[in-house]
Amino acid sequence: MDCHTFFDPQSVAVVGASRHKGKVGHEILAGLIRGGYEGKIFPVNPNAAELAGLPCYPDLKSIGQVPDLAVVAVPARAVPAVIEDCAALEVQSVIIVTAGFREIGGPGEDLEGAVARIARNAGIRVLGPNCLGLMVPTNKLNASFAADLPAPGDIGYFSQSGSLLAAILDMANSEGIGFSKLVSIGNKADIDELEVIEALAEDPETRVIAGYLENIADGEAFLRAAEEISRRKPILLMKSGETGAGAEAASSHTGALAREAAFECVFERAGVIRCHSVKTQFDFARALATQPLPAGPRVAVIANGGGPSIMAADAVERSGLELAELDDDATAKLAARLPPTACVRNPMDVLGDALADRYDVALRAMLDCPTVDVVLVMLTPHAMTQCVETAQVVVDAAKENPGKPILASFIGGRRIERATEVLRQGGVPHYDSPETAVLTIKIMAEYARWRARPPRVVKLFSVNRRKVEQVIERHLRQGVAEIGEMEGKAVLEAYGFATPRGSVATSGEQAANLAGQIGFPVVLKIWSPHILHKSEVGGVKCGLNNPREVMDAFDLMMYRIPKRVPQADILGVLVEEMITSRQEVVLGTTRDPRFGPLMMFGMGDVMVEVLRDVAFYLAPLTADEAKQMLLKTRTYRLLQGRPGQEGVDIDAIAEGLQRLSQLVTEFPEIQEMDINPFMVGPEGTTPIAVDARILLKR
Amino acid sequence: MDCHTFFDPQSVAVVGASRHKGKVGHEILAGLIRGGYEGKIFPVNPNAAELAGLPCYPDLKSIGQVPDLAVVAVPARAVPAVIEDCAALEVQSVIIVTAGFREIGGPGEDLEGAVARIARNAGIRVLGPNCLGLMVPTNKLNASFAADLPAPGDIGYFSQSGSLLAAILDMANSEGIGFSKLVSIGNKADIDELEVIEALAEDPETRVIAGYLENIADGEAFLRAAEEISRRKPILLMKSGETGAGAEAASSHTGALAREAAFECVFERAGVIRCHSVKTQFDFARALATQPLPAGPRVAVIANGGGPSIMAADAVERSGLELAELDDDATAKLAARLPPTACVRNPMDVLGDALADRYDVALRAMLDCPTVDVVLVMLTPHAMTQCVETAQVVVDAAKENPGKPILASFIGGRRIERATEVLRQGGVPHYDSPETAVLTIKIMAEYARWRARPPRVVKLFSVNRRKVEQVIERHLRQGVAEIGEMEGKAVLEAYGFATPRGSVATSGEQAANLAGQIGFPVVLKIWSPHILHKSEVGGVKCGLNNPREVMDAFDLMMYRIPKRVPQADILGVLVEEMITSRQEVVLGTTRDPRFGPLMMFGMGDVMVEVLRDVAFYLAPLTADEAKQMLLKTRTYRLLQGRPGQEGVDIDAIAEGLQRLSQLVTEFPEIQEMDINPFMVGPEGTTPIAVDARILLKR
Repeated sequence: MDCHTFFDPQSVAVVGASRHKGKVGHEILAGLIRGGYEGKIFPVNPNAAELAGLPCYPDLKSIGQVPDLAVVAVPARAVPAVIEDCAALEVQSVIIVTAGFREIGGPGEDLEGAVARIARNAGIRVLGPNCLGLMVPTNKLNASFAADLPAPGDIGYFSQSGSLLAAILDMANSEGIGFSKLVSIGNKADIDELEVIEALAEDPETRVIAGYLENIADGEAFLRAAEEISRRKPILLMKSGETGAGAEAASSHTGALAREAAFECVFERAGVIRCHSVKTQFDFARALATQPLPAGPRVAVIANGGGPSIMAADAVERSGLELAELDDDATAKLAARLPPTACVRNPMDVLGDALADRYDVALRAMLDCPTVDVVLVMLTPHAMTQCVETAQVVVDAAKENPGKPILASFIGGRRIERATEVLRQGGVPHYDSPETAVLTIKIMAEYARWRARPPRVVKLFSVNRRKVEQVIERHLRQGVAEIGEMEGKAVLEAYGFATPRGSVATSGEQAANLAGQIGFPVVLKIWSPHILHKSEVGGVKCGLNNPREVMDAFDLMMYRIPKRVPQADILGVLVEEMITSRQEVVLGTTRDPRFGPLMMFGMGDVMVEVLRDVAFYLAPLTADEAKQMLLKTRTYRLLQGRPGQEGVDIDAIAEGLQRLSQLVTEFPEIQEMDINPFMVGPEGTTPIAVDARILLKR
Repeated sequence: MDCHTFFDPQSVAVVGASRHKGKVGHEILAGLIRGGYEGKIFPVNPNAAELAGLPCYPDLKSIGQVPDLAVVAVPARAVPAVIEDCAALEVQSVIIVTAGFREIGGPGEDLEGAVARIARNAGIRVLGPNCLGLMVPTNKLNASFAADLPAPGDIGYFSQSGSLLAAILDMANSEGIGFSKLVSIGNKADIDELEVIEALAEDPETRVIAGYLENIADGEAFLRAAEEISRRKPILLMKSGETGAGAEAASSHTGALAREAAFECVFERAGVIRCHSVKTQFDFARALATQPLPAGPRVAVIANGGGPSIMAADAVERSGLELAELDDDATAKLAARLPPTACVRNPMDVLGDALADRYDVALRAMLDCPTVDVVLVMLTPHAMTQCVETAQVVVDAAKENPGKPILASFIGGRRIERATEVLRQGGVPHYDSPETAVLTIKIMAEYARWRARPPRVVKLFSVNRRKVEQVIERHLRQGVAEIGEMEGKAVLEAYGFATPRGSVATSGEQAANLAGQIGFPVVLKIWSPHILHKSEVGGVKCGLNNPREVMDAFDLMMYRIPKRVPQADILGVLVEEMITSRQEVVLGTTRDPRFGPLMMFGMGDVMVEVLRDVAFYLAPLTADEAKQMLLKTRTYRLLQGRPGQEGVDIDAIAEGLQRLSQLVTEFPEIQEMDINPFMVGPEGTTPIAVDARILLKR
């Protein structure tokens, strides 16, 4: 989208402007004028000569000049003709607020398609349809029918729900929250959320990008762009429809997505901060827009009472942050300057009779202390408490210490009203409970850690790519989607996985000899390109302990299986080493339709089945991401070993995940793949990929 | 505490009343007068003849009559003499607001002890010291130095933190939240939280009891009383100091408790609703004070926009509540009366152009629908939205449907201000986000389920109590705290636990013969009253498969153990059936210093060690509570079985827990006890208590 004509147009045409109050075309024109827009305004309506004191034009070309921006509010069926007019006139940017397009299905979808085609052919960029429009407070541009312009501010907001945007505006207006840009993206016929996010990323007025989404147009592009932008500006997203019921409501609302699990991975990888309510989104945004990021998780708390300081300390602990340990210097300063009854430590209780000066001493000592990463200032209004003066102390300290974040939570009502206004104007975010402030600190600390993470380096292993190409090509040529064990093993080996030792035998004696070379116990598996599910036909026999058992098993398979599967060519029997006394884990991958391959790690057997203890992440994986996947499982400690049981080689599992990640990244033809079990031993041993299931895209 | 003299005194003496603004004695007197108290007020101060227009008395006895209530604000060292005066005059009820007692440690503790003694001997009931006092809005009684009287209301509030109470008052005053009683309990030298809760339970003005606690004076009494009261009135508690850091702050603040895990069980058993912030406490209280309890978890949502309705649906799903399925009748009604573009289902989107009448139709259809347990009404202010009229529709519907709860979440700022005021005055609780409303509904539904639970019936098993008495008496007499395996087995059997079959052998041949009778494999264990930890001395040998192995193991023990433990009398070797191929679980109990025995259930071995997958509950257990403990573990599904593995006898485990619960309830001498492993088999089999560790109180 062109930021110039959308956010700072020199002239705006309102097509479908109306004199009738309550009509969208009226509200937009009135809003533009009321907002104090200083460019030219051209009302367009064939039935009026003048509207709101401005000359009115029968159509766009009658204006006699090309408006930078056209806002279209005519009925849906008339929209294509208006866009044709825009094309003829070479208008660059259009907002279609009219509803009645894709969101009503059937004919609406066709109409939207037609409009999009006309616009695309003419090179016109379109916001909407079915949107509220947009607002740019610093340019006094209210090209919307949402509400009055909010105060200018640091937050750039976009929303896929007009209803929600209207509510947010009303809320923000009464709480004094300001915005740089507000964009209602509607049906996204042309401009989608990603273009808006990119525009806000480049916008110097925007410090924090926030938005509400129901679906994402292009998953991989979103991931790439969001990851890059999050390094510079925080992105706060509400994404609805992630649970079953919400997904159902969302899908019929704007045709949104079914599988939501992948979003968590996408947001995590891209550093996007996910919010579950408007309130928390603005709680986080206010801090991110005004405060620096904390260098670490160590929180200092100042309060003028025991109860509130304990509550804050509890909240810090519950959140996984840390209560900072004050260093000797800070302790000495506090002990020297505070009354002897104030117990010097963190949380710091400056006592109920504290005036603003005592807060000043405590706050400055905390800010100077190198073991403190962030300070939370709490206040409850006692009889003598100087609420406003204390707020001013906090604001001044924040100004003088621009490198360390300060958040405030004054608890009360009327008595703290003016104080919280002082905090707001001074750029110190204020929260109505310590829990909310602490949650915000946690989000800030996590985002800071994300920003500080080392560059992602995906290791490329040297592999035999050609071999896998051959296997996949042959399967696709023959229209076979599932790759069987024989060739699955070849694929695994081509990508550096060790598989159980084994060879094919064509007689019982040969099988027994091979077993002797491999070492007992062994497994026998029927070897046929036509039998994929060997167990089901009696084609697998485990735990054979001596030559006699091997020969018996061989003969039984040769006798029984041809009767069960007469059409199968049987090439012999695979004699394979039996892997025991190792930890079983599962490595897997499945291709998400929006975000590409999603990697899966799970503890073997019971842990996956019963506990559903699995972790996901997006391919391609770095070594660190692979290890983080292991750490995310609840049963991670099983891998570390414990008294009487040696731990397993964690790095070897991570490497397995990375190799699998490389395989599915290099072969988009692979739809799903599991290595199960992947048997891992103590450090230094090579894990064995015992079995693999590979499913190709049809 | 005497409700008459504390909550509705006919006369109040203010001892230590002062003319100096800022002094506590001044604030209390001024507050009483400003609040409009209609009884007699007696200022007491030897240095004034008149205060605030009232005659002032040099001491209590000079008043010439006995005040119902004395509020004491003299310096700490002068308090004992004042209480002596109260005793002489037979004043019944006293509030000591003065600080400088137990909370400052050392001499303060002694002073508090002295005051408590004087009061107890004279039969005087004391609130405080170190408290803010109390407030009763309906009686215009402000016997505190906290703030001005709040509005009368349904919430009875008490707080152990004066600082927090002051903040709550200020907040409530500006949000129009009313109170029936407000009690600052301070150091609890005499009256504790339980007496206050009991007084509020009896108070007809109080519909909801809420409070903030840092410790609990008498755990078992609290549990008993709270459980009884919760059946009639909801109790909402903030209990701080539950996490490590909070506990540390709390412990030096008012000497509070270390182990907090038990509180969760206590609150659950007693139906107490635990809150983690002031905000959520009042969010819940407002709904519980104004709305009926929901009959079930099925929520209907009405909104005038897709985004908000999806957000609410997501919140319902995330919370574990259900989205109600509308019945045919409701669906037909809605389809007939709403515009065709409004899609009839739950969440119900009445569309952005909905006026109040459309809400009326939707809300009444939902309220009439028997599959709906609770309705959440959302609104975002669009251009034509009738915010106030819609609020009135909701209020009217709530009045006409007193049996089904309605909550509202209007999202916005100025445009919804008047509407939310209409809701508040109409007794419909309003929430600034659907998430908060849904969380409140969840709390209501859980509390309703608690209230509807069947009476608790603890089954008493027929046991051999005498046998256990003998074992315990002998150990206590001998000063031995740990009961060894021999007698542990006797204790288990006395309480109906099956133990492995086995007998003691004194020769290798006898051992081999016994093993043959029991059936191989067997376990051999050295049999000596002096050896508690058999494995450590080589006194346990498992998995013996034939007579030869049994004889070898016997002889090795006889040869080696006397060398290692020369002082032990060795009576022989226990030959025991070896229990295999069953599921191992752990039953345990530990005595909490405040709440008595806490029962523990855990999955055996890895699950307990690695996953810390254990569940706790208070003894004595009912059958249902025992089963709930199993259900609470994350690995419960392991017990249910799965393809290829039969489930185990759940009831048998529950019975084991109940028997253990009976044992520790009947023997307070038992400090800790584990049955580990407790081996359980398929339904119908008897579980075996393989080993037990019993620790007596020293």
